[in-house]
Amino acid sequence: MDIAALLTSVGINISVTIILFSLYSILRKQPSNLSVYFGRRLASMRELQLDAFGLERFVPSPSWILKAWETTEDEILALGGLDAVVLVRIVVFSIRIFCIAAVICILLVLPVNYYGNDVIHGHIPSESLEVFTIANVKEGSEWLWAHCFALYIVSCSACVLLYFEYKSITRTRLARITGSPPNPSHFTVLVRGVPWSSEKSYSASVKEYFMNYYASSYLSHQIVHRSSTVQKLMNDAEKMCRPRLLPCLCEPPNSFKILSNEADNDRENTRLDVLNSSTEKEYGVAFVSFKTRYAALIAAEVLHSANPMLWAMESAPEPNDVLWSNLCIQYRQLWIRKIATRVAAIAFMFVFTLPVTFVQGMTQLDKLSHAFPFLKGLFKQRFINHVVTGYLPSVVLILFMYTAPPTMMLLSTVEGSVSHSGRKKSACIKVLYFTIWNIFFVNIFSGSVIAMNVFFSVKDIPKQLALAVPIQAKFFTTYVLSSGWASLSVEMIQPLGLFYNIMKKFICRIKKDPTNGTLSFPYHTEVPKLLLFGFLGFTCSIMVPLILPFLLIYFVLAYLVYKNQIINVYIANYESGGHYWPIFHNTTIVSLVLTQVMAVGVFGIKHASVASGFTIPLIIGTLLFNEYCRQRFFPTFKNISGQVLTEMDRQDEQSGKMAEIYQQLKSAYCQFRLLSQEMSKAEKTDHHGDQDRTLDPESMKPENEAASG
Amino acid sequence: MDIAALLTSVGINISVTIILFSLYSILRKQPSNLSVYFGRRLASMRELQLDAFGLERFVPSPSWILKAWETTEDEILALGGLDAVVLVRIVVFSIRIFCIAAVICILLVLPVNYYGNDVIHGHIPSESLEVFTIANVKEGSEWLWAHCFALYIVSCSACVLLYFEYKSITRTRLARITGSPPNPSHFTVLVRGVPWSSEKSYSASVKEYFMNYYASSYLSHQIVHRSSTVQKLMNDAEKMCRPRLLPCLCEPPNSFKILSNEADNDRENTRLDVLNSSTEKEYGVAFVSFKTRYAALIAAEVLHSANPMLWAMESAPEPNDVLWSNLCIQYRQLWIRKIATRVAAIAFMFVFTLPVTFVQGMTQLDKLSHAFPFLKGLFKQRFINHVVTGYLPSVVLILFMYTAPPTMMLLSTVEGSVSHSGRKKSACIKVLYFTIWNIFFVNIFSGSVIAMNVFFSVKDIPKQLALAVPIQAKFFTTYVLSSGWASLSVEMIQPLGLFYNIMKKFICRIKKDPTNGTLSFPYHTEVPKLLLFGFLGFTCSIMVPLILPFLLIYFVLAYLVYKNQIINVYIANYESGGHYWPIFHNTTIVSLVLTQVMAVGVFGIKHASVASGFTIPLIIGTLLFNEYCRQRFFPTFKNISGQVLTEMDRQDEQSGKMAEIYQQLKSAYCQFRLLSQEMSKAEKTDHHGDQDRTLDPESMKPENEAASG
Repeated sequence: MDIAALLTSVGINISVTIILFSLYSILRKQPSNLSVYFGRRLASMRELQLDAFGLERFVPSPSWILKAWETTEDEILALGGLDAVVLVRIVVFSIRIFCIAAVICILLVLPVNYYGNDVIHGHIPSESLEVFTIANVKEGSEWLWAHCFALYIVSCSACVLLYFEYKSITRTRLARITGSPPNPSHFTVLVRGVPWSSEKSYSASVKEYFMNYYASSYLSHQIVHRSSTVQKLMNDAEKMCRPRLLPCLCEPPNSFKILSNEADNDRENTRLDVLNSSTEKEYGVAFVSFKTRYAALIAAEVLHSANPMLWAMESAPEPNDVLWSNLCIQYRQLWIRKIATRVAAIAFMFVFTLPVTFVQGMTQLDKLSHAFPFLKGLFKQRFINHVVTGYLPSVVLILFMYTAPPTMMLLSTVEGSVSHSGRKKSACIKVLYFTIWNIFFVNIFSGSVIAMNVFFSVKDIPKQLALAVPIQAKFFTTYVLSSGWASLSVEMIQPLGLFYNIMKKFICRIKKDPTNGTLSFPYHTEVPKLLLFGFLGFTCSIMVPLILPFLLIYFVLAYLVYKNQIINVYIANYESGGHYWPIFHNTTIVSLVLTQVMAVGVFGIKHASVASGFTIPLIIGTLLFNEYCRQRFFPTFKNISGQVLTEMDRQDEQSGKMAEIYQQLKSAYCQFRLLSQEMSKAEKTDHHGDQDRTLDPESMKPENEAASG
Repeated sequence: MDIAALLTSVGINISVTIILFSLYSILRKQPSNLSVYFGRRLASMRELQLDAFGLERFVPSPSWILKAWETTEDEILALGGLDAVVLVRIVVFSIRIFCIAAVICILLVLPVNYYGNDVIHGHIPSESLEVFTIANVKEGSEWLWAHCFALYIVSCSACVLLYFEYKSITRTRLARITGSPPNPSHFTVLVRGVPWSSEKSYSASVKEYFMNYYASSYLSHQIVHRSSTVQKLMNDAEKMCRPRLLPCLCEPPNSFKILSNEADNDRENTRLDVLNSSTEKEYGVAFVSFKTRYAALIAAEVLHSANPMLWAMESAPEPNDVLWSNLCIQYRQLWIRKIATRVAAIAFMFVFTLPVTFVQGMTQLDKLSHAFPFLKGLFKQRFINHVVTGYLPSVVLILFMYTAPPTMMLLSTVEGSVSHSGRKKSACIKVLYFTIWNIFFVNIFSGSVIAMNVFFSVKDIPKQLALAVPIQAKFFTTYVLSSGWASLSVEMIQPLGLFYNIMKKFICRIKKDPTNGTLSFPYHTEVPKLLLFGFLGFTCSIMVPLILPFLLIYFVLAYLVYKNQIINVYIANYESGGHYWPIFHNTTIVSLVLTQVMAVGVFGIKHASVASGFTIPLIIGTLLFNEYCRQRFFPTFKNISGQVLTEMDRQDEQSGKMAEIYQQLKSAYCQFRLLSQEMSKAEKTDHHGDQDRTLDPESMKPENEAASG
């Protein structure tokens, strides 16, 4: 592939991107697409003003770009939660570091590469892309020090930026925890592995245990019931006491008397019946609430029983975040599920190598036309040739790649995560491994001359990687152009949502319920994408600096698109509490170390052993930096510090909020809230008109008010 | 090496062992060697009755064998603590599993190996050792199923035995915790990273912090002081108040008034001076005691500060176990020390490969005589040849290996462990890696045709191992014979102690202080040895079954020797709480999996692909079993469960022991107790005559009584 082919690809992609962005700016103005492009806003306010029918509805406008650009981090935090902030920070970090890398590498490394060999250069458009890679520098060249210097600059700035970002996100996370309204999850632990007893129910066991060992701090508990049984009972109960709906079924037994005073006798009897008949359908799983956050923290941290499979406790997820269907999984099954899903994910990753290898074949046209002789004539046309080698492989690959996130999400569900956010995080990690393996490594190993089994020769990996990356330069560059840019457009236009919307409107003729399709942000597909491009950026920066400008454009677009989507489309029902940052941090460190290892390989190939040796301290330094961050920052992501929680408890006690919190806690974790939810939603939309209420992660609050009031 | 050479080696080693054991039974009867062979007994009782001068003092007798054989596990637990029990259990486990393996492999596998090839066998003594290895089975033989069957039997019995042993040791550990007298370490946490403040001392900071966050459970604290300063002050103080020695310097300030009532004014003033002048020499490290065990557990488990480098807490080691010199290491240095020592240990491990390779050369006489032509004549003699190939390599290797434990101990000290037991455990792991690498892997890779870089080819490892182990059969067999048997004799005879004793008695003319040289059990040298032989046993069992009888003899001897040493020689000042069992468990699992992987390789080489495939479920099963044990048992080794500690607290509260415990706690962690220790020792030997007092892990108790009474 020469520069002309690359320019063709750039041209196609710029056109496609502009067309798609324009299309988006038109589509979003159509009232029928409101639910697709303004899901979050629709969910938070009752009506969205839209212009009447006019010509400007069909003229593209850049207003959304301005809006996205101007939104501050505090607004993002309020709208999308901490995870959204982390996402934006990841993009900002990438823009910063690749700005530095682009300046250094384009000004210093690119000329060195281009003039690295004593070859008379021809006309630039007809130059091969490889002339701009490190492969063009002749062996033993003094100029390789330029690469070493650039590597030092990039690595050091990356570490410095990472450190300050980690520090700042840790601070933001802490401020978010202390600043937000009382969170039931801080007061609650999820107890699993309640031992079965023939004499008493699980509920009685739980109560007895906590009255025994946590008498001073135990508040209440809520047993998890078998879904189908209770759902059936709920329906029966609903029929019996039609006049008013049951607000919530799972108040703990000890709160009965208080509540029954308010309730009429009929309702009380019904509920008692329901509870009695459902005790035998209980699971050995319960949400136990404590009187202070600190007591809950302790319960979650300490080993309780001499048999670790019993009385296993962990911090409860937020009420909206609970994945009720997974709570029924027995605790002692979890470890084997984890192993099984990991094995399945790895198997899927390797099976996927087949289509990737096929796609890789498309960049080598001669092979392809040999396999399909009837295509020979077609390939002789210059433009078709450029399209097929420069564009098609990436598109095919993207289409294949779309199967990965749902598969990994399924695996993460089977894995047994008890929260939506935990499941998404786990899927994100799986998709990340999958993406980096299939895009980076498989392409390198299948595309270059190296057979797969060379991968098993540990010693040669640096050299083989160093040889393979420049060869794959064209693929990576076009991948950034096509997959990167296009995927952002696709994310904006939401073809699936649009299609679903059209189907619903024009074929099924459903008009109402606009908020039903509102989704939460797909971190498990978007974070791995960002990380993959960061990975490509680092590993290619020194060897194929030409990729950096395209990457920069990608990240700038990502900055606008993701901010826009957070503002308009996705609702933040739950959040992982910024847990995507450690994932990003680790991936970046891995990318840096791999880049450095490849640099050692390159310098080895080019007989610059001094530069090669000079890079090794950098590797050690990067690894030590990572270890330092792991010691200094990571523990605060795993657990909230006791000091912070104690201070929060004290503040609430002093301000007298505790009684109110206790009241809320008693019904915070309610398994069967569909009915009560709808009821409270109806009440809410009558009473409140403010914009961002449902975006609050503690959005169960109004429901509780409705339930307890 | 043929069977005759092996028999020579066996003969030499049996003779040497018998001679050494007889020597031991004579030496131990000499009164001058009392301190070498009865250190523990001497330390625990005032005088040891010994026969008067008589002929029987110079006649070997097997009485110690009977005594060792008859000692029960409960006695071992009382004398040597939990670690000693674990050691004995490791030996018993090894005897059991290698009995099973020996029966299966000698009866089934050995004949299959011997008749595996259609070769007419000659006279057995002149047969090569390789005839008895799997290398002799011809390719594609149906009989390989015998090996597969034996592997299944050995693996399954190992897993079953491991499971029940783990369960039983967990129970023993729990009984030990609940059954022993109140342990100050359960009430205490070690606080590190106390933030420095210019306004107040560390002591004041600690007090303020715990009065703030643990007001209800905080009891007292003891700051760690700079050693040299306080030691100097101690000496000064001692001079000033000569009439009575200071019992303990580091009572917390709040216990002053109670104590000063008893003390005369002079002493009080002195102590106040000492404390005032030493506050500025404090470290940011403290032992903080709580009113209940549960409160201490909580403090040790929870993340305290938003900056994890501050207020880092962990369960305190037992008072006797504290490694005071390491407490001054700053907490934020720890992680880098850990990394540095690990790197140093690995470097040492690899540097050591040189002498091992040299030793390996000695088994190939032709190479050696080529290098040193003047030896040629010598090697022509049959006996010399047998000695050199069969015996010398192991001896040289053992001598080299003696440098490893002190080096690893040094590294573990630098690593920053705060307890003697922790340091010993860490050294044990390092020595274990070192031993297995240098004895097993280096010998395999340097002895066989395989060059070291084949090791880097991951895919071929099973096959290469499978090829190499039978080739190294003779080395491993003679290693068991020489190193294994001889090292036990050496352990018994204690040449170093004997030499030191003779030096002291006859050259330096020191007569008194017999207990000074008493050591605690060298787990860091003995556990890796046992594990290495277990490792060799498993990996060789299927391929070189001839090694098993010798191994069995080794383990039976080990059973007697170690029990004897625990009863007579070593004192148990501190213990790790059975932490050597998880190390043993993991190593055994690794050995099993490696054996199975090698079996896959062997079956691959022999074209028995069905048997090869049949082994893979076994590998998966073993790994799953290990994961299950890690989930089920390991957490209880890391932490004591909250339930257990709460029950213990309640019992002590009900029995009214708590006040007494609090009194003890205030002076339990006393940094400068040399003087007080000697004083109390003098008192103790006056008052108490019972045998096992100093062997109790809570042996500070009498001292505290002395100090507080």
